[in-house]
Amino acid sequence: MSKTLVFGHKKPDTDAIGAAIAFAAFQNARGKDYEAVALGELGDETLFALNTFNVDAPRIIQTAKDETDQVALVDHNEFQQSVDDIEELEIVSVVDHHRIDNFKTPQPLFYRAEPVGCTSTIIAKMFKEKDLDIPKEIAGIMLSAIVSDTLLFKSPTSTPEDEDIARKLAEIAGVDVDKYGLEMLKAGTNVKDMSAEEILEGDAKSFNIKDNNIRIGQINVVDIDDVLARKEELVAGMQRLSADNAYNLYFLVITNILTSDSVGIVLGEKSDIVNEAFETDLVDSIIELPDVVSRKKQVVPQLTEVLENM
Amino acid sequence: MSKTLVFGHKKPDTDAIGAAIAFAAFQNARGKDYEAVALGELGDETLFALNTFNVDAPRIIQTAKDETDQVALVDHNEFQQSVDDIEELEIVSVVDHHRIDNFKTPQPLFYRAEPVGCTSTIIAKMFKEKDLDIPKEIAGIMLSAIVSDTLLFKSPTSTPEDEDIARKLAEIAGVDVDKYGLEMLKAGTNVKDMSAEEILEGDAKSFNIKDNNIRIGQINVVDIDDVLARKEELVAGMQRLSADNAYNLYFLVITNILTSDSVGIVLGEKSDIVNEAFETDLVDSIIELPDVVSRKKQVVPQLTEVLENM
Repeated sequence: MSKTLVFGHKKPDTDAIGAAIAFAAFQNARGKDYEAVALGELGDETLFALNTFNVDAPRIIQTAKDETDQVALVDHNEFQQSVDDIEELEIVSVVDHHRIDNFKTPQPLFYRAEPVGCTSTIIAKMFKEKDLDIPKEIAGIMLSAIVSDTLLFKSPTSTPEDEDIARKLAEIAGVDVDKYGLEMLKAGTNVKDMSAEEILEGDAKSFNIKDNNIRIGQINVVDIDDVLARKEELVAGMQRLSADNAYNLYFLVITNILTSDSVGIVLGEKSDIVNEAFETDLVDSIIELPDVVSRKKQVVPQLTEVLENM
Repeated sequence: MSKTLVFGHKKPDTDAIGAAIAFAAFQNARGKDYEAVALGELGDETLFALNTFNVDAPRIIQTAKDETDQVALVDHNEFQQSVDDIEELEIVSVVDHHRIDNFKTPQPLFYRAEPVGCTSTIIAKMFKEKDLDIPKEIAGIMLSAIVSDTLLFKSPTSTPEDEDIARKLAEIAGVDVDKYGLEMLKAGTNVKDMSAEEILEGDAKSFNIKDNNIRIGQINVVDIDDVLARKEELVAGMQRLSADNAYNLYFLVITNILTSDSVGIVLGEKSDIVNEAFETDLVDSIIELPDVVSRKKQVVPQLTEVLENM
């Protein structure tokens, strides 16, 4: 039997990479033959984590069929977020913390999802359930993934279990979770070297809500003014992307990871709904979003509610 | 928060009932409020198991929305096998051992599937992972479910893990697994009191393979002749059901649980494919199927292969 490739979603974040590395280590410790790979370029935050714990970056693949028949998915389950030839492969296992969206397989498989803040939290539990020791570098990578997904436990998606497990992993990895966590998050916030397109689309998702085509990007920073200083360039990019893709709302959420506040840049014919959703007033396309850090829990549901009541 | 209802699939077998009872016990031991319910009448085998271990039969429901918003599924995930109003409910968790077919939820959830022979095997592992003691009667019910799904470990769907866990559960339950298991299986094989329709449709599933509408029923017995003695009556029923539902193949698999062999009664315009699939000849609509006990692994794939190569 050929080896099983394991990977997170396209546009990989630190959990997509970290969970793949950790799940491969978990399976290999049980005598299986797994290799972690990536479905895209790694970001600065992820590279910082790999470098700190002396772990090699996984190689990048576009398709898997040419080298194996069996794959394992972590941190995603939707086929459009997966490897290009996913429908031609046997999915032997999935570990994930997202909703499940029209997932299907012809055969029974191993599927483990939990509503926690990070996939690596679940994989850490699996090590414990099988009484397997977690190697120091794998603990460091899983810790990094949890810090990344939960913004150091400040995101409303973070659960007590995520924080509890992250603190135990930090002990194994031999780092101070708050000090290391902040350094790692900062490493992913260097917007000065990023193009406007990278800022806008590096972590952008589309949402179809009541026939509105809404694009919501998010960028984490340590100083929101670093992004706002480039507002003109960003607005031009948002206009171009909206015209090309028929978005009727483009919402860029700029999040300060130190203060857990955000500021939004809003463009498009549906801009007004943002005022109603957040009970405030857009001024020159800018909206203040105090205490907002989670697109999933603090932006999308609020916009959805306004649109559904119109 | 109202209680969570947990149930297995419609036309419940012993695992659909047993896994629901065991999962409710597992969650209640962790301070949650779960109630096991059933989506249909219980069979004789299941009633024998409940009676042996002095466990009340769950009440039967058709819909859940009138009493709760939250449900948990065991031993199934396909919506058409679930409660009638499944799409109006929040599914908080799934524990299952089947393929996943177009499952979807708007929110993240707890989902645990493993390619083992029985859902109760997975639930027994969950008790162990959380260091929870399994009550004696719950051990008995989970053991019964494993024996039922694996035909006392003789089905090719049975894994070493199923048997290992069943034997540990038998110790807790205080029964001899082989002796009790055979008694329980026999309790579900009393075809003399069953109508032809119950024999045919008690455990029948439809399969659409290459535009063929195929119905495959299965009945477990200790003496195949008890069923073959009623061949005329059964064939009449198969003809009526095929006409009403436009089946072009009706295949009743009669399985001897003592010898792990089967005999089939085959009807319909596509009857010939059965000869090719099993390399034998139909005589008077009867086919010998030595060593065949699993519809999922030893019948459906064989018919599929023939139809796909036609």
